[in-house]
Amino acid sequence: MKVLVINCGSSSLKYQLIDSDSEAVLAKGLVERIGIEGSILTHRPAGKDKVEIKTPMEDHNIAVKLVIDALIDKDHGVISDLSEIGAVGHRVVHGGEKFNKAVLITPEVKKDIEELSALAPLHNPANLIGINACEQNMPGVPQAAIFDTAFHQTMPASSYMYGLPYEYYEKYKIRRYGFHGTSHDYVSARAAEILGKKREDLKIVVCHLGNGASISAVKNGKCVDTSMGLTPLEGLIMGTRSGDLDPAILSYVGEKEGLSAAEVNNVLNKKSGVFGLSGGVSSDFRDLNAAAADGNEKAKLALDTYYYRVAKYVAAYAVPLEGIDVIAFAAGVGENDPQVRAKVCEKLAFMGVKLDAAKNDMRGEEQIISADDSKVTVMVVPTNEELAIARQTIALL
Amino acid sequence: MKVLVINCGSSSLKYQLIDSDSEAVLAKGLVERIGIEGSILTHRPAGKDKVEIKTPMEDHNIAVKLVIDALIDKDHGVISDLSEIGAVGHRVVHGGEKFNKAVLITPEVKKDIEELSALAPLHNPANLIGINACEQNMPGVPQAAIFDTAFHQTMPASSYMYGLPYEYYEKYKIRRYGFHGTSHDYVSARAAEILGKKREDLKIVVCHLGNGASISAVKNGKCVDTSMGLTPLEGLIMGTRSGDLDPAILSYVGEKEGLSAAEVNNVLNKKSGVFGLSGGVSSDFRDLNAAAADGNEKAKLALDTYYYRVAKYVAAYAVPLEGIDVIAFAAGVGENDPQVRAKVCEKLAFMGVKLDAAKNDMRGEEQIISADDSKVTVMVVPTNEELAIARQTIALL
Repeated sequence: MKVLVINCGSSSLKYQLIDSDSEAVLAKGLVERIGIEGSILTHRPAGKDKVEIKTPMEDHNIAVKLVIDALIDKDHGVISDLSEIGAVGHRVVHGGEKFNKAVLITPEVKKDIEELSALAPLHNPANLIGINACEQNMPGVPQAAIFDTAFHQTMPASSYMYGLPYEYYEKYKIRRYGFHGTSHDYVSARAAEILGKKREDLKIVVCHLGNGASISAVKNGKCVDTSMGLTPLEGLIMGTRSGDLDPAILSYVGEKEGLSAAEVNNVLNKKSGVFGLSGGVSSDFRDLNAAAADGNEKAKLALDTYYYRVAKYVAAYAVPLEGIDVIAFAAGVGENDPQVRAKVCEKLAFMGVKLDAAKNDMRGEEQIISADDSKVTVMVVPTNEELAIARQTIALL
Repeated sequence: MKVLVINCGSSSLKYQLIDSDSEAVLAKGLVERIGIEGSILTHRPAGKDKVEIKTPMEDHNIAVKLVIDALIDKDHGVISDLSEIGAVGHRVVHGGEKFNKAVLITPEVKKDIEELSALAPLHNPANLIGINACEQNMPGVPQAAIFDTAFHQTMPASSYMYGLPYEYYEKYKIRRYGFHGTSHDYVSARAAEILGKKREDLKIVVCHLGNGASISAVKNGKCVDTSMGLTPLEGLIMGTRSGDLDPAILSYVGEKEGLSAAEVNNVLNKKSGVFGLSGGVSSDFRDLNAAAADGNEKAKLALDTYYYRVAKYVAAYAVPLEGIDVIAFAAGVGENDPQVRAKVCEKLAFMGVKLDAAKNDMRGEEQIISADDSKVTVMVVPTNEELAIARQTIALL
């Protein structure tokens, strides 16, 4: 069966068409500027040249229609008819406490996703728009919602509760949810598979280090803690997100800079992280590495602080895991930056972590990179959220 | 020599008169409601009954005068003449990046303390008021400032920088400072002394667990990381302070509850922590333990979450320390609650931490409480900030 995987933003839509038997990506693409002047669809069929389609797209409905047209186009299409798409899997950011696993979409589920918009006002409404657009364009095709938060729902309360008045949890459901769950699930499962072990027998720390970054502790197959919180702002220093802060800093910055709470939030999400700490060098680790190699002190500082925070989280997760068997690096930075892995692991030498420098000197490969005498197995496990979504969608049918 | 130790708040003043030779506390006391109706001085001379003096005190000047009168009073006094006080040591909360050690007070130092008020608007101005009142009442007596932040000034930048725009550090000095420094310094030094080792050869985690609580990592005698930040709000869950939070929670709570940024800060400082998380049971661990023993689920949750966060910080500090030799518990909760120590150490069993239950079953004693075969030495080291301030004051003369 062919599964269309959809990740819908407020003005964008990413897609992949995956053959569930071979798990091959038949085509993928991105629609940008939906509802804005300059709408563009970039379609990449496997084995063929990419196609750019520039045409006004007033809403997501039209965008989905154009994606379908591209998929069945006689020149750059990859299927001959819409009926070949057996299911659609949607990435949905926030499943709250309601969803601890993927579900087939029903009117009830859509209502729940809408209600959970309070917790993810930028994401859930956009995800719903994508769901509705696909339902309209592909009537009768089963649609599934795969939640970014679901994998983390196994956390114990001591991991997910904040030191806040309890009534905030009761009234507003303020707690740690965690994100990137599909990736943490996929990577921890794949790590066990590569090692020829059962995930149920392992204590795994997954370092999902992309532009957004989070860490999770997966004990015997279940998430027991993760670094992102109510929103994806908490935890590690990220590309442009601050991660952990003294909460008192927000009003201090607001006052000093004359910014509203919303404006401070914007700074913390979009102008902070390694980008901000490096004095604006870049949020891209390739640029930061180059600048640091060139002697840029702020770039060095941003990198050092980044490494240090990752290492502290890994070490802290030995508490809920009661020790660590495996550390798995994933996502853009985790897969492609040998220096991040080397520096983080260097800081974990006290617990017997030891890399094999030669094995670590690669990008994007699925590989064990720890030395044979390392007490902890360190691996690179390229993540594949789209494949995970396709698999979970199929599993629901 | 006799040293008067002063800890001055905006409407209060705590004092101890310490004999620097015997290190005995000759008298101690507390003035409350300075400048408010109902001013009261509670004076406790060693070996005599306490005295309560209720009289209007319109400012700190009058309060200091009354303290001196009490100290030299023929009935409840402990010295015969003001001239016996050889020096005054003042606790000053924020020394910023300017002060990495205690200093004798000069007009220049007072100006610096005033300028640092931006970072501690509730504390530094009050500390200055106390300094001025003592100068007026004891002209010619050397006065020293002992900063709560000074001990932490040895932290490397990767420990003290936040993932924020670098300019916030340049313009507003926003960084981690840490507090309770006098206690972390005293406890780590005393721990080494008890063990008959040099602090320079040890990797020590100090858990200062009082109503305010912070942890520090002391490597070879120097602080390399600590849990409080720009303000004393960050880090552990405390009596009424939230500690670490997703920064996005502040505006979320503000919006939902209709609170200003300052009001949210107030909730995070005064209505959160174990008090808030337990649904308002108490910020006192004796009450929480009793409620939990009675089956109160929220009290249990608050305690579990508290223990878990302490353990995660300890484990994380193995990174900057490159391993841990000693864990030292101090302050109200750390010294007097065997259960906190037991539960935290239980969660650290993975690193070879093992308590001796019999040795741990005590309150307020200086004692090694780990089992003989524990890989990490665990101790209780009652803190004594006043003695540390007196010692540092003497050392400056």
